[in-house]
Amino acid sequence: FMIIGVVKERFPGERRVALVPASVPVLAKAGVEVLIEAGAGLPAGYPDEAYRQKGATVVPTREEVFEKAGVMFHLLGLGANPEAGKADLALYRPGQSALGFFRPLGDPESARELAGTGISAFSIELLPRITRAQSMDALSSMSTVAGYKAVLLAADALPRMFPMLMTAAGTVSPARVLVVGVGVAGLQAISTAKRMGAVVSAYDIRPAVKEQVQSLGARFVELPLEAGDAEDKGGYARAQGEDFLRKQQALMAKVVAESDVVITTANVPGRRAPVLVTSAMVSGMNPGSVVVDMAAERGGNCEATRPGETAVVDGVTVIGPINLAGMVPYHASQMYSSNITTLLLHMVKDGALRVDLDDEITRETLFARGGEVVHPRVREALGLGPMASDDARRP
Amino acid sequence: FMIIGVVKERFPGERRVALVPASVPVLAKAGVEVLIEAGAGLPAGYPDEAYRQKGATVVPTREEVFEKAGVMFHLLGLGANPEAGKADLALYRPGQSALGFFRPLGDPESARELAGTGISAFSIELLPRITRAQSMDALSSMSTVAGYKAVLLAADALPRMFPMLMTAAGTVSPARVLVVGVGVAGLQAISTAKRMGAVVSAYDIRPAVKEQVQSLGARFVELPLEAGDAEDKGGYARAQGEDFLRKQQALMAKVVAESDVVITTANVPGRRAPVLVTSAMVSGMNPGSVVVDMAAERGGNCEATRPGETAVVDGVTVIGPINLAGMVPYHASQMYSSNITTLLLHMVKDGALRVDLDDEITRETLFARGGEVVHPRVREALGLGPMASDDARRP
Repeated sequence: FMIIGVVKERFPGERRVALVPASVPVLAKAGVEVLIEAGAGLPAGYPDEAYRQKGATVVPTREEVFEKAGVMFHLLGLGANPEAGKADLALYRPGQSALGFFRPLGDPESARELAGTGISAFSIELLPRITRAQSMDALSSMSTVAGYKAVLLAADALPRMFPMLMTAAGTVSPARVLVVGVGVAGLQAISTAKRMGAVVSAYDIRPAVKEQVQSLGARFVELPLEAGDAEDKGGYARAQGEDFLRKQQALMAKVVAESDVVITTANVPGRRAPVLVTSAMVSGMNPGSVVVDMAAERGGNCEATRPGETAVVDGVTVIGPINLAGMVPYHASQMYSSNITTLLLHMVKDGALRVDLDDEITRETLFARGGEVVHPRVREALGLGPMASDDARRP
Repeated sequence: FMIIGVVKERFPGERRVALVPASVPVLAKAGVEVLIEAGAGLPAGYPDEAYRQKGATVVPTREEVFEKAGVMFHLLGLGANPEAGKADLALYRPGQSALGFFRPLGDPESARELAGTGISAFSIELLPRITRAQSMDALSSMSTVAGYKAVLLAADALPRMFPMLMTAAGTVSPARVLVVGVGVAGLQAISTAKRMGAVVSAYDIRPAVKEQVQSLGARFVELPLEAGDAEDKGGYARAQGEDFLRKQQALMAKVVAESDVVITTANVPGRRAPVLVTSAMVSGMNPGSVVVDMAAERGGNCEATRPGETAVVDGVTVIGPINLAGMVPYHASQMYSSNITTLLLHMVKDGALRVDLDDEITRETLFARGGEVVHPRVREALGLGPMASDDARRP
């Protein structure tokens, strides 16, 4: 029998768990058993008894899970959990496998340490963005949860109500919410804010998302490029670029100043988040307004953001939350569990893990095997040359 | 000229202000000027400049406002603000008037102290519940804001999402919200929770509210009275009563256990709030569930509530907020300002306050005048006999 091991997550403040009871029978059907550390699911709302009822075995210690499991399921593994994750290095056994968020491109040194334990490690951040992988895409599902939670944080901090109300004491005007960056998180932020009654605008550098924004009932903010100017002067592409950027910032400042809430969500994988909202723009907002910077973990989209803290700048509350999805642990765990279970089952054949490097999903997520970092982009980030052949990645 | 005085509110943590800039021109039209303490509106999002622009005079000290104003506008005056409110006693001048929440029935001793200053004091809690007074009813407007905020607190504390979502990682089931007590606050809690995508049920001892609940898209919980039993045994009204209560509690326990969020709003004016949710019922809820007790200030509808605190009981978060409306200060102030301005203008004639005791609204709200407590119910609460005549209440 193949055994999946699940342990209590150790990232500071983390309440999620990598697997929920509902996934146990799904795995059992494929001949896979589940071993879970006592109390691992409780902070997310899943007591041990619920796991037992679904057929999992609950064991008292973390060590026992690592000893007996063939495949470890993590949420934030080393790399995504830089400090507390170190403790797992001593517990992994050569030949064991591990699935989870490991952030190997953001923290390639951790990837090297993981490889050193001799495990085969698969990182969910590396999933290819293809249709087949959608049901495994935990980055997307965590972004969905985070987009929802960001709006709740904003609504809670705002001294205004979100919906328009007609009362005997007059009309309460609706909150104006601006979402900057319309990926999965931004779309969920838009629909949550709309649902709560706010008037919502959204901006993205990709005009292709305009229709999606409008279909959710929000206004798509267009920062008009002054094409006329470009043609008049002609030729000076660089100067035009600077001119455009300056105008874009001025237009953005105006939109930001008219908003009660700004939610920023722009992340560039593996790099520092771009600054889109300057401190001057924040100062231009009305006192009491709120910025929620969903890119705080990567340095922030707002100049005034202090990651993990709430700052008040000229009367504007700037919230820089870390691990937003972890603040809705019940449903975030449920979605993550579904994603990681689907990924595992994709690689299971006849009750055993079968690493097929001809499969794009398997090949792209695998970054450590046989003692070595095997993923080309992670090797590059470590300054390692390409591997002699794919043999090291093969069983 | 008649002058309205507005000072910074002093209740601990209070961010509201009794008057917002938009009301200044409304008062000016009736020949009434506004004098406001510098910074009084800022915590609610109304800077001094906004008051000046609308024609108010901003003065640096609280003392100056008390000295020059004919009528003081408060939000939480002495009685509703038992400790910090004491400081105002030394500042009132005989013949001055004051409008605000003074809670004279809940704290009649404070009413006596207020009367001792020689002011005419009008308390908004005493407004008669008649159609004419609806636009002055700040208890209602604050309850509206509080009902909204209670749902936000619940959503923020809940480890689940409120709306149902269909995602690539499976279906997220909607939160089940139970609202107990369907007054103004309860109705706003229902519509806020519905708006956010929850499945909402509501209970009230008054079956008359059933239609209102249903018109908001919520389910009305009926706890069936076992009329059959009553007829079989006949005569033993008391025993039947106990039997009914026991059954009611058992049925309520079942509804509570099936809910992810319970919001209680049952207040009895001037008395301790009734206990509707026992500690045993809380323990019967799923871990991670949330209770928001809107009656916390009056002792709470939930046995496990600790007023002003958040307790975790058997994994259930029990929130006992104080001053919920004050947590949404911008709109709460706007609505309150509209209410109190309407009440004042109701009593202003030819630019002066005219106390007409033949008018029900004036007569019912006035509780102190000419050095005496003049309201019959407040006198009764103080053990004073009725006044010899209404002369003392007359100018």
